[in-house]
Amino acid sequence: MSLSQKVKIALIQLATGSDKTANLLSARKHVLEAAKNGAHLVVLPECFNSPYSTASFPEYAEPTDPAQESFQALQQMAKDAKTYLIGGSIPERAASSKIYNTSLSFAPDGTLIGKHRKVHLFDIDVPGKIKFQESETLSAGDEITMLNTDFGKIGIAICYDIRFPELAAITARKGAFLMVYPGAFNMTTGPLHWELLARGRAIDNQIYVALCSPARDMSAGYHAYGHSMVVDPNGEILTEADEKEQIVYADLLPDRIREVRRNIPITSQRRFTVYPDVSDRDGKQ
Amino acid sequence: MSLSQKVKIALIQLATGSDKTANLLSARKHVLEAAKNGAHLVVLPECFNSPYSTASFPEYAEPTDPAQESFQALQQMAKDAKTYLIGGSIPERAASSKIYNTSLSFAPDGTLIGKHRKVHLFDIDVPGKIKFQESETLSAGDEITMLNTDFGKIGIAICYDIRFPELAAITARKGAFLMVYPGAFNMTTGPLHWELLARGRAIDNQIYVALCSPARDMSAGYHAYGHSMVVDPNGEILTEADEKEQIVYADLLPDRIREVRRNIPITSQRRFTVYPDVSDRDGKQ
Repeated sequence: MSLSQKVKIALIQLATGSDKTANLLSARKHVLEAAKNGAHLVVLPECFNSPYSTASFPEYAEPTDPAQESFQALQQMAKDAKTYLIGGSIPERAASSKIYNTSLSFAPDGTLIGKHRKVHLFDIDVPGKIKFQESETLSAGDEITMLNTDFGKIGIAICYDIRFPELAAITARKGAFLMVYPGAFNMTTGPLHWELLARGRAIDNQIYVALCSPARDMSAGYHAYGHSMVVDPNGEILTEADEKEQIVYADLLPDRIREVRRNIPITSQRRFTVYPDVSDRDGKQ
Repeated sequence: MSLSQKVKIALIQLATGSDKTANLLSARKHVLEAAKNGAHLVVLPECFNSPYSTASFPEYAEPTDPAQESFQALQQMAKDAKTYLIGGSIPERAASSKIYNTSLSFAPDGTLIGKHRKVHLFDIDVPGKIKFQESETLSAGDEITMLNTDFGKIGIAICYDIRFPELAAITARKGAFLMVYPGAFNMTTGPLHWELLARGRAIDNQIYVALCSPARDMSAGYHAYGHSMVVDPNGEILTEADEKEQIVYADLLPDRIREVRRNIPITSQRRFTVYPDVSDRDGKQ
């Protein structure tokens, strides 16, 4: 258990539009507000600088380097807010010219401390309800991402990645106290599975889990579910947004993780002689 | 996906007491009733022939062989009901003289088709709420258990085993359409985690999940939560008991598994180049 102090997390459920510069400015305004309210760690939603559509991804994509608008804006937000910043995600144009759904994280001094490319592309088709195929324009990343911060390790994954329990299991077993998923579930899968997945990842790993969605915009092509939330290591919801633009906050406590793991000690009761430990391979962290 | 036909499952939320023979007779009566109502697969709760207490386990324990009262009674129930029977669990005295929390399963012709010894002992301590240490008198099993039936494969695990996602993941990936957990959560962990765990195992693996509890008896030393339930592969609750003695039924449908896996195709989207497949080792099935 690597959380070393009380950490105030802020999830920015941003209302986003089709103007990239306006999205970045609005993100900045909210990040500074969260910092003013005492947040140590601020999270932006998935795809916050672009409309969430496969046609938009190539159009909005940028290389993730310090010369680019979105990288620069995120880096500057972290520095000016003097907080850790998990920059939601943005469409990334790689040197290979492939496009990724990518999350950039920065330290309070503006250092880039993590880059996660969504590992599981959102390709689903619920007839009559929701069809979306990220793979039309996106490529999948192939790395598990964990940040090192002054108060401990944090796992990062994006939206659909949450349906695959291995990412949270591996990062938690390697010492993360928190999984953060910038995500944009929709009006079909949101009511069904958003809270269930957040709470499930939390109790299976006895870590904090934070999901950060964009606000819902019924005039957009994709209707995000909203309901950004922080869940504690016992599966209890600490804070939950509704569907509108807002910031929600929660305190993450070292004692709470310790207490939950002491009371129901699954982290020491696993039977790795009966089944493998998924965190055993993967020497990447 | 190995479910080959519509299967009607019955969960018997039995009221149990301290008289073993009476418990077995009551189980028999309910199993026959479920069969009369068309069940193909009948499930009894955890520790249904004995009080759930560490002191009772050695006293009630029997070898699991056909000469013994509980084995015989279960075998005869399956034969007379002409159904598959997942016989909840009973305290087992092994040849080594160790005691296990063991589930015996029978085919409609009375053949023993599975024996699961609880792999994860229930040793928890939530101060002021619930303390229980199965390991005071029980030993842990060390095998994952999957049944072969005429309509497909079924994974079996017991109660606290559900907190460890590997058992369901491995059996589902090896073709099980259903995980059955005879279990007796309590009034602390039940309201918090019973439904969450059932629904979580279901959606992570897109299989059916059934939890079968004893009825609640506030005069007993251990207060079972009840709420036996069947969850579908999309995480939706098909049937749920309250806390009293009763039988609940649900139809398990091959088309439903196919539909869920087609709509949100996580079973084909896993990235086993990024993380290991827990079902890859373990040549036991």
